[in-house]
Amino acid sequence: MLRSRDALRTRMRAVDLIRKKRDSGEHSREEIDYLISGYTRGEIPDYQMAAWLMAAWLRGLNHAELTALTESMLYSGEVLNLADLPGKKVDKHSTGGVGDKTSLILAPIVTAGGLTVPMISGRGLGHTGGTLDKLESIPGFNVNLSLEEFRRVLRECGMGLIGQTAEIAPADKKIYALRDVTATIENVGLICASIMSKKLAEGIDALVLDVKTGSGAFMKREEDAIRLAEVMVETGTRMGKKTVALITDMDQPLGRAAGHSNEIIECIEVLSGRGPADLRELSIELSAWMFYLGERTRSVEEGRRLAENMIASGQAKDKFKQGIKLQGGDERVIDEPKRLPRARFQVDVPSLASGFVSGTNCEQFGVALAMLGGGREKKEDAIDHAVGLEFRKRIGDPVKKGEPLATIHYNSDAKLAEAKSLIAGSYQIGDAAPSQPRPLVRRILGA
Amino acid sequence: MLRSRDALRTRMRAVDLIRKKRDSGEHSREEIDYLISGYTRGEIPDYQMAAWLMAAWLRGLNHAELTALTESMLYSGEVLNLADLPGKKVDKHSTGGVGDKTSLILAPIVTAGGLTVPMISGRGLGHTGGTLDKLESIPGFNVNLSLEEFRRVLRECGMGLIGQTAEIAPADKKIYALRDVTATIENVGLICASIMSKKLAEGIDALVLDVKTGSGAFMKREEDAIRLAEVMVETGTRMGKKTVALITDMDQPLGRAAGHSNEIIECIEVLSGRGPADLRELSIELSAWMFYLGERTRSVEEGRRLAENMIASGQAKDKFKQGIKLQGGDERVIDEPKRLPRARFQVDVPSLASGFVSGTNCEQFGVALAMLGGGREKKEDAIDHAVGLEFRKRIGDPVKKGEPLATIHYNSDAKLAEAKSLIAGSYQIGDAAPSQPRPLVRRILGA
Repeated sequence: MLRSRDALRTRMRAVDLIRKKRDSGEHSREEIDYLISGYTRGEIPDYQMAAWLMAAWLRGLNHAELTALTESMLYSGEVLNLADLPGKKVDKHSTGGVGDKTSLILAPIVTAGGLTVPMISGRGLGHTGGTLDKLESIPGFNVNLSLEEFRRVLRECGMGLIGQTAEIAPADKKIYALRDVTATIENVGLICASIMSKKLAEGIDALVLDVKTGSGAFMKREEDAIRLAEVMVETGTRMGKKTVALITDMDQPLGRAAGHSNEIIECIEVLSGRGPADLRELSIELSAWMFYLGERTRSVEEGRRLAENMIASGQAKDKFKQGIKLQGGDERVIDEPKRLPRARFQVDVPSLASGFVSGTNCEQFGVALAMLGGGREKKEDAIDHAVGLEFRKRIGDPVKKGEPLATIHYNSDAKLAEAKSLIAGSYQIGDAAPSQPRPLVRRILGA
Repeated sequence: MLRSRDALRTRMRAVDLIRKKRDSGEHSREEIDYLISGYTRGEIPDYQMAAWLMAAWLRGLNHAELTALTESMLYSGEVLNLADLPGKKVDKHSTGGVGDKTSLILAPIVTAGGLTVPMISGRGLGHTGGTLDKLESIPGFNVNLSLEEFRRVLRECGMGLIGQTAEIAPADKKIYALRDVTATIENVGLICASIMSKKLAEGIDALVLDVKTGSGAFMKREEDAIRLAEVMVETGTRMGKKTVALITDMDQPLGRAAGHSNEIIECIEVLSGRGPADLRELSIELSAWMFYLGERTRSVEEGRRLAENMIASGQAKDKFKQGIKLQGGDERVIDEPKRLPRARFQVDVPSLASGFVSGTNCEQFGVALAMLGGGREKKEDAIDHAVGLEFRKRIGDPVKKGEPLATIHYNSDAKLAEAKSLIAGSYQIGDAAPSQPRPLVRRILGA
């Protein structure tokens, strides 16, 4: 088909790169960059990128290819340079789950401890909540800062919490939208490049990854979570960033609250030295790793003590207050949580049996919350910040038939019955407590 | 991700079908039809079809899926109903090669023998020639008949030779264009569905497939040719058509001529009882199978005798003349070949060594012909019908250094030197003749 002559005439063609990946070939850095920058500029059409993504999904990308892909996506947009700000810049990224709200606890802790936390976060989609949505339940809080405003907030208080702007990794935005409609989302390599390109655009020195596994996580199986953690740690390290990943439990919700304003309240509880043990433990653990990687402490253990001290001294809570105020939010919510939106009605979800909670189908709690208006199916969907779930039983707890497993905070009973039965059915009740509770942090990679 | 609820709400979604094939799932007939008819109507975008094609390329399609795919593509357009015409309707399809001109010999033979041959053909691309291009070297010959005109020609003389109209398998036209730019051409299943959907639109009862293998074929390796032949025979049979496939040699050009008007001349030679033995043998063999499958003869052997008789009696040549005239062509070319366009210049390609022709890199002859203006790289390219190659040596022939291997008929010397050296280099000269010449027909499937 005269292919050799074509190749001489034009140096690189998308169709040849698609064929190469289809046939399990390994791309050079230049080839990856040709694809990504060409696609971002609109020179390579959607259908060629879709074919390449499917080939990459099925044939895989090795570490060198993933690093090149991440780099191309990163430099498709602006990369913050925060060298003029004091201390190391660190961040945490979680792969998401139900009730996962640690960002809003560890950002104030780590900032109060002397590091800078430039956090660019996402919104909830499907069964998972999003940091931006939770913050927006605070009256006036503005997550849509320009990069210039973001930099100003960071300079003033050390922490900033915004959404992905148009300048940050535009390649990722465009590719993610295409992956969403071409069944090429669920791939460790592509997920890694998407996450890392956005996070590294923050201009950070170190990154702590919280890779969730279990029935409420995207990675249901621990081996998948480990594989994702491994490639992210490898990619971050190859790009000169200190990177560790904690594989953590998502077989049940984190903490007792899911929703938006009620998760903010739970965060304030933990920052006040109270709150559920699991949420407190994980927030301190992640903060400790951030302190250690950010060279604020000489060990993780020392990091834990610093984190606990930031809570006990009230400095973390004060930092959160300052951060909220600087982003236009009503900082009085910290001391007067009733200023947050509250749902009008509450109803308990009674247990269908007596016994012990042996497990949960955790993802379904997120689905039930979305049904009640507290989540989205499509990006455009509006969210009710007031609705939420309060989990009353955890794995291992004894329960009697009719006793409340959870409490629903709701505004409309349109899908209440459906949500209620979904929640009740998502608690597994057994005859005995699980013999060995699985640890919250299952494994640490890259340390 | 609320997928189960989505599935309830909308019955079928392209993204779910892409995911299914990505995960090696088997599509139902309804799923295939949803994809193909949705894409043809423009409801499923290019990028989703591109992702599905790549998934299908890599994961494969089984016989049931291929039959459904062929059927969906077939019924995306008009399917001729020729029930009112006398006798069985039969056709032949070749996967293409260099010097492959049997269609123009067997169509008159089989029609003269009493069957109807409604032949919808293609154009040459890359190193292969196309039946339509060859016909257009006959002054006035019109391959662009409407289906109504085609039907009228078939009624009048029993054979018709046209190009794919807009009504025939529009799904294939759209999908082929997408495959071309997404590296999803070279797949046995997709090739099968593309060929069979167009051929079965002719309203035929039986189909003889000539699947070429060797250095001048698309399927270079015999096992690939056999695999393609198997799925095509299986698909044709499942769709209720008598189908056989002959695996035939393309390690060297078929006959002595490649080009357009000089191939027409060679066809007239064979129809006049002369011409090269290999071309005559294969034309008679394919005709014989068409007679047999079309129930005109009780055996293939009887079909051979009928074919030979159609040549010897001059009936096949007369039929060709009638067919040319009915499609607006100058039928006097049959008796006065000088009425066909001839190239102004000729030059021999001398052998670089003495010995025996042990093989050819046959595809390169086609590439050389295209260089001289007798082929296309892109669909839009114009073609010079007068240029051509005359092969003077075949595999096994002794040759002396400096003796002509081939003669080039050309109009411009722009790329003559390049073409000459390509042709010379494509003849392999060894010390001895190959001990065992491989047969022209290597294998027959589906008989």
